[in-house]
Amino acid sequence: MAEKITRTGTKDSSEEDKPKPKPKPKRKLGNRRKIKSKTKLTYEPLQIKNYIAIENVYPELDSGRFPVKRTVGEALEVWADIFNSEHGKIGATIKYRKEGTERWDYTPMQYFDNDRWTGKFLLSQIGRYEYSIEAWTDTYNTLIGNMRKWFEKGEDISMDIETAITILKKCSNEARTDSANYDGLSSTLDKLSKTSNQEEILEIISEPDLLSAVNKFQKKEDLSEYKILNVVVDREKAAFSAWYEMFHRSQGSLPDTSSTFRDCINRLPEISEMGFDVIYLPPLHPIGRTNRRGANNTDNAGPQEPGSPWAIGNELEGGGHMSIHAGLGSMEDFKEFIASARNFNIELALDLSFQCSPDHPYVKEHPEWFFKRNDGSIRYAENPPKRYFDIYPFNFRNQNWKDLWQELLNVVLFWIDKGIRIFRVDNPHTKPFPFWEWLIRKVHHDYPETIFLSEAFTRPKLMKYLAKLGFTQSYTYFTWKNTKPELTEFISDFLVSDAAEYYRGNLFTNTPDILHEYLQKGGTPAFKIRIVLAATLSSVYGIYNGYELCENKTKGPNSEEYMDSEKYQYKMWDWNREGNIKTFIANLNKIRRNNPALHTNRNLKVLHSNNDQIIFYGKWDVDKNNVILVAVNLDPFNTHESIVQVPIRELGLVQGESYEVYDLLDDTSYSWRDESNYVKLDPQVQPAHIFLLKK
Amino acid sequence: MAEKITRTGTKDSSEEDKPKPKPKPKRKLGNRRKIKSKTKLTYEPLQIKNYIAIENVYPELDSGRFPVKRTVGEALEVWADIFNSEHGKIGATIKYRKEGTERWDYTPMQYFDNDRWTGKFLLSQIGRYEYSIEAWTDTYNTLIGNMRKWFEKGEDISMDIETAITILKKCSNEARTDSANYDGLSSTLDKLSKTSNQEEILEIISEPDLLSAVNKFQKKEDLSEYKILNVVVDREKAAFSAWYEMFHRSQGSLPDTSSTFRDCINRLPEISEMGFDVIYLPPLHPIGRTNRRGANNTDNAGPQEPGSPWAIGNELEGGGHMSIHAGLGSMEDFKEFIASARNFNIELALDLSFQCSPDHPYVKEHPEWFFKRNDGSIRYAENPPKRYFDIYPFNFRNQNWKDLWQELLNVVLFWIDKGIRIFRVDNPHTKPFPFWEWLIRKVHHDYPETIFLSEAFTRPKLMKYLAKLGFTQSYTYFTWKNTKPELTEFISDFLVSDAAEYYRGNLFTNTPDILHEYLQKGGTPAFKIRIVLAATLSSVYGIYNGYELCENKTKGPNSEEYMDSEKYQYKMWDWNREGNIKTFIANLNKIRRNNPALHTNRNLKVLHSNNDQIIFYGKWDVDKNNVILVAVNLDPFNTHESIVQVPIRELGLVQGESYEVYDLLDDTSYSWRDESNYVKLDPQVQPAHIFLLKK
Repeated sequence: MAEKITRTGTKDSSEEDKPKPKPKPKRKLGNRRKIKSKTKLTYEPLQIKNYIAIENVYPELDSGRFPVKRTVGEALEVWADIFNSEHGKIGATIKYRKEGTERWDYTPMQYFDNDRWTGKFLLSQIGRYEYSIEAWTDTYNTLIGNMRKWFEKGEDISMDIETAITILKKCSNEARTDSANYDGLSSTLDKLSKTSNQEEILEIISEPDLLSAVNKFQKKEDLSEYKILNVVVDREKAAFSAWYEMFHRSQGSLPDTSSTFRDCINRLPEISEMGFDVIYLPPLHPIGRTNRRGANNTDNAGPQEPGSPWAIGNELEGGGHMSIHAGLGSMEDFKEFIASARNFNIELALDLSFQCSPDHPYVKEHPEWFFKRNDGSIRYAENPPKRYFDIYPFNFRNQNWKDLWQELLNVVLFWIDKGIRIFRVDNPHTKPFPFWEWLIRKVHHDYPETIFLSEAFTRPKLMKYLAKLGFTQSYTYFTWKNTKPELTEFISDFLVSDAAEYYRGNLFTNTPDILHEYLQKGGTPAFKIRIVLAATLSSVYGIYNGYELCENKTKGPNSEEYMDSEKYQYKMWDWNREGNIKTFIANLNKIRRNNPALHTNRNLKVLHSNNDQIIFYGKWDVDKNNVILVAVNLDPFNTHESIVQVPIRELGLVQGESYEVYDLLDDTSYSWRDESNYVKLDPQVQPAHIFLLKK
Repeated sequence: MAEKITRTGTKDSSEEDKPKPKPKPKRKLGNRRKIKSKTKLTYEPLQIKNYIAIENVYPELDSGRFPVKRTVGEALEVWADIFNSEHGKIGATIKYRKEGTERWDYTPMQYFDNDRWTGKFLLSQIGRYEYSIEAWTDTYNTLIGNMRKWFEKGEDISMDIETAITILKKCSNEARTDSANYDGLSSTLDKLSKTSNQEEILEIISEPDLLSAVNKFQKKEDLSEYKILNVVVDREKAAFSAWYEMFHRSQGSLPDTSSTFRDCINRLPEISEMGFDVIYLPPLHPIGRTNRRGANNTDNAGPQEPGSPWAIGNELEGGGHMSIHAGLGSMEDFKEFIASARNFNIELALDLSFQCSPDHPYVKEHPEWFFKRNDGSIRYAENPPKRYFDIYPFNFRNQNWKDLWQELLNVVLFWIDKGIRIFRVDNPHTKPFPFWEWLIRKVHHDYPETIFLSEAFTRPKLMKYLAKLGFTQSYTYFTWKNTKPELTEFISDFLVSDAAEYYRGNLFTNTPDILHEYLQKGGTPAFKIRIVLAATLSSVYGIYNGYELCENKTKGPNSEEYMDSEKYQYKMWDWNREGNIKTFIANLNKIRRNNPALHTNRNLKVLHSNNDQIIFYGKWDVDKNNVILVAVNLDPFNTHESIVQVPIRELGLVQGESYEVYDLLDDTSYSWRDESNYVKLDPQVQPAHIFLLKK
C-alpha cells in the first residue's frame, strides 16, 4: 500500500518554458507508480464542445441530405431532444435564413416534455431555407433558480447575488448600443444597489423583461450547434390544386383534324366552372414521321394519322422541344391560350418528355447525345424484349453530357420565358438521378415558383427518391388502389407516413394510359367514388378529360387503354353528353376551395369504420376550426352501412354531448354523439359523405 | 412560330482554344431565341456521381454519429435500399475494416426484395470497425440479361456478343496477376473464338465462375459510396454476464470492523457456485473524515464509524483514487483477490466515482479542479436545495481541465495496469458528455476489452445518450418496473427498440440504495420472480449481496433504503441463513449458461398472454436451434393461469402437430400444440416456467 509513485501526465508541457514556480512540496501519496501502458499518455482530448446533446430533430430527411417541403405562409415547426449532463438550465433557439442570405434569424425554443423542445418560424417566402438549432447553458437562469431554492431553505444567498450582479453588469456592457435593453439593465442595477433585502432582490433579478434582456446579451456558455437542414418552400398551388389533363388536339368539333389552341381557349369557361385550376397539356411539339404509331397504337400509321405527341421532334415540320406543332397554332396563339387561362385563374402545365423521334433535329446535330449500337446506328428506346421504334432516348452520360444537360435546361427556361411555371415530367425514372437534382435546383434558383410533377410509375422507393431529389409533386399508384385494404396500405405508405414530408401525391383518377377496370365496370357511381377519394385524400389531384363524361370503353376486355385513344388519333368529344358528372365535380371542387383542411397534404387521418366497403377518414387544420370527415362507400353496386369512429377527444368534442355533422355534398345535417356513429350510403344516390363538423 | 433564335450555352468554352472544326451548317430550327433569364447559363452541373441511390441503411445510429454495438464472433448484418434509375443491373458490396487498418475488405451484397439488399461480415476481433456500402452498374450482367431476352425473342445478338467479348478481354487484361481468374477468362475467350452458335455462346458467357471473375475485374461504372459507419465490437462478457455486487467490508465474521480482501476471497467458491462471473466492488479507497456520514445515513459519524466509501480520498490515510483503504488490505492482497477470482472464472469490477471527500489529496494539490463559492471556499456537491457535505464534485471545465481529465484517465489506466478490465461508473450523468466520449475512446484504443457500466439513474434520453457515447452496459429502471404494463413499456423502450443497437441494459434486482416495495412485501416468491425476470429478459443482469438471502428490511415504511445499510456501517451476514435462494439462483445461472439464446441482448420478443399477471416472452438464436420461452407470474401472492401465444410459424413449427416444451427450472415436460397453450403458476411452488422448445 505504500509503493513509491511518480506522477505522470498531469502537467501541460508548455509550462516547461515558463519561469519555474517555487517547487511544490514533494507528494507522498500511496499507490501510484509509472504506468506501463501501451497508450501514449499525451494530451489528445476532445475539444470542449457538444456539452449539450441535440438529437432526434424533426423535420429532418435522410440525415439532412434532402430538404423537406412546405408551403409559403406556413410555419415550420421544429422539434428536438435537447439535454445536458450536470445541472445547468438550457436555452435553445432555432436559427434560420433564406438560402443565399448571410444573416441568421433566431426564434426561441420552448421546453415541451421529456427533454423535448419545440419552436417554429414563418416561411414567408417561396424558395429554399436553411435551419438549425443552437443550445447553450443559461448561466443566469440556472443561478437564480438555485438561489430561489437556497433562499426558500433559509440559506444566505448574498454570494450568489454578487454573481448575479456581475452577470448583469456584463450584459449591460454588451447592451450599450441597444438603448432599451441598456436602460432596463441599468435601472435594475440601480435598484439592486439600493436594497439588501434578499427577497426583494430575488424578485428584481427575476423580472421577465430582465430575463429576456439577459437572454439576449449573456454569453452562451457551452454553445452546441446542430447541422444545417433545409426546407423547400413552394407556392400554394404546389400543395393545393385540381388538375385537368386536356388533350389539346381533341378539343374541337371538326373530324379527322387537329383542334387548335383556339378550341382549347373556348373550353376554358367550362373547365373553370368545374373548378379546375391547372390544365395539363401533352407535348405540343412537331411529331416524328419515322415509325409513327397508328390508331389504337398499331404499327405504321397511315399518312393522315397524327401519331403520338410523345414522339417529339420533326425537323421538316418545324423542330423539336422548343417548337410548336403547326396544327395546334402558333407561338402567339399559345401565348394567348396562356393569357386566357390566366383570366380564369387557370395555369397551363406543359409536358417535359426528354426523348426524341428519329426525325428530331438533335439527331442529326448531336448524334453523340444518343445511344449507339455496335454498327453505329442509333439505338431505339428499348426495355428488353420490347423496342419503341418511334423514340430515341438520350444517353445522359455521353461524352458531351454537359451540352445535353444544358440544352435540356434551356428547354425548360424557354417555356418559362413564355410564361409556363408548371411542368409534368414524363418518365423521370428512366433518366439519371443527378440530372434531375441539378436541373430542378438550377431552375428553382431563379424561378422558385416552378412546379415539377414527376410522372414515375415505377417501384415505390424510386418514386419517393425522385420526390426527394426535388420534384414538387408526384404521380402515385392511386388508380390501381380501389379496395379498402389497397387504399389503406397506399395511404399509409405514401400519404401519411414520413413520405408526407417530401412526397406530394397528385392523385389522378385516370390518364390516357390508365382506365382501371373499376371505372370500366362500375358505372357513374364508380366515377363519383373515385373522384371523391382523389379530391379529399389529397390536396392535389387530377382527372384526364373524358372522366367528366364517365368515358369507360377500353381497347379490349383485359386492357387499361382507352378504345380509340386520342393518343394516336384525332378525336371529337361531346362535352355535354348525357350522363356527365360535371355538376358533381364542380360541387366537389367548390367544397375543396371553401375548406382549408383540404388544402394541405400533411393532415390526413384514417379513422375506423367497421364495414370493409366503407372507408372513413378526416382532415382538419391546425386550430381545428375546419374539420372535414369523409365516408366513402367503395362498392359502386350496393348500399352499405357502417359504424364510424370520430376521434372526439382529439377534436375537442365533449363525451356525452351531441354535435352536428353537415354533409357538404347534399346539404343535409346529422346529429352525432360520442365516438361511434352510423352512416349508410347508397351508391346510386350518393356514394359518399363529406362532412363539415359544426361544433 | 418562326422566330429567329440564337443558340445559347451548349458549347464548352474550352473548345474555343482548340483548332476550329469545319463549321456546321447553319441551323434553322423554329422557336428559339435568346432567353432573357435571371440565371447565368454557365455550366455548374453536379458531378456525374451518385447515379445509384443507397439509403435506409441498417444498422446506422444517428446518421453515423455514433457506433452500434456488437459482440466478437457475431456477423454484422447490413441492409440497404439500393437502386438506380435507367435499366442497368446493380452490383453492391459491403466494405469494412478494423479501425486503424488501411486496406478495406469486401463482401458482396445480395438482392433481397423491393430494392432492399443485404450482406454480412464477421466481426472477428474486439475493437472498432468501419463499414460502408459501394454500389455500381454491373455492365456485363446487364448486357447478358438483355441478350438472353433478345435471343429468346428470336433477335440476332451478334453485336452484343462482340460487346461481351470486349468486356471479357478487358477483364482478362486486368487479371494478369491473378492466375486462376486469368486462366479462366483466357479459356472462355478461347472457347468463344471457336463457336458461332449463339445459344452456346450465351451459355459460355453466363457461367457462374466467369461471372464471379468478371465481377472482380470489370470496371465499376457509376460507383456510388455510402458514408462510413462504425460498430464497436465488445468481448462476450459485455453482452453476457451475471453480476454480484459485493460489499467488500461486510464479507467477514468479525463485528464492528472491516472485513478484508482475504474474507472476500473466502467467499469466491460460494459465489462461483451460484453462477456469477463478475463481482462488482464499491470504491475501495481511503474514506474522507470531514463530514463523514454515520450509520443509516445520519450526519456526523462517530469516530469508530467507517463512513460511505463513495466519499473518496483521505490524505492522512493513504491517498485517493489510486490507493486502497487500509482496512481492506494491501495492493498485494487486492492482486491476490483478482487472481483468486480469475481461478473461479470471475472477474472483478471496480467502481469509478469521480468525486472527492474534502480530505482527498487533490483538494490541496489542485484546488483549481473544484468549484469555488464567491468567498473562495470549495463548493460541496449540491443539488439545490440539498448539499452533500462529505463530497466535493470536480469542475470538469476548470482552467486546468486538461490536467484533470488526464488525471482521471490515469486513474483508469492505473487499475487496468493492476488487471482490472471492468468499471462500474458512478453517476456519469453529472459529468460532461465530451469527457466520457474522450475517456472511453482513449481507454478502448489500447484496451478494447474494457467494459464500462453506466450507473445513470436519470431521464431516459440522457441514459441512452451515455450508452451512445461509449458505455458498454447501462443501469436501467428495472427495479421500479414490476407490473405487467410497467415491464412491457420498459421492455419496449429499452430492450427491444432501436436502443438494443447500443444500449445493453444490465438488470439489477436491487442495489445498496434500492430495495423496492415489491421485494419488501412479496416474500421469497417476489425474490424468485424478480431474478427470473432479470436473468432472462436481459443477457446481463446482477444482484446486490443479501438478495440471495431475501433480505427485505428497510429504514422505514416509505423508504427504499436498507435498514442498517452497509453503505454507512460495518455489518456481518450469515450467508447460509434460512430462507436463502442460492440453489434457485445457481440453477438459473446454469440455465443461462447452457442456452445460447440467453447470451444476447438483441433477440427478446414479448409474446401474448391473456392474463394481466402473467408475462410471456421468448428468446431464440439466429438459427432457432435454441428456443427459450419464459412465462412469469408477477403476483407473488396468488396462483394465476393464462393462455399464452407461441409464434409457431416464426419458430418453424407445424400447425396441427404437437411439440414439447421442457421446463428447465423443474425438469418437467409439456406437450403443446399450435399457437394457444395453457400455463398455471403457483408462486409458492414455482412462479415461472423457463421452457426449452424441443422440436
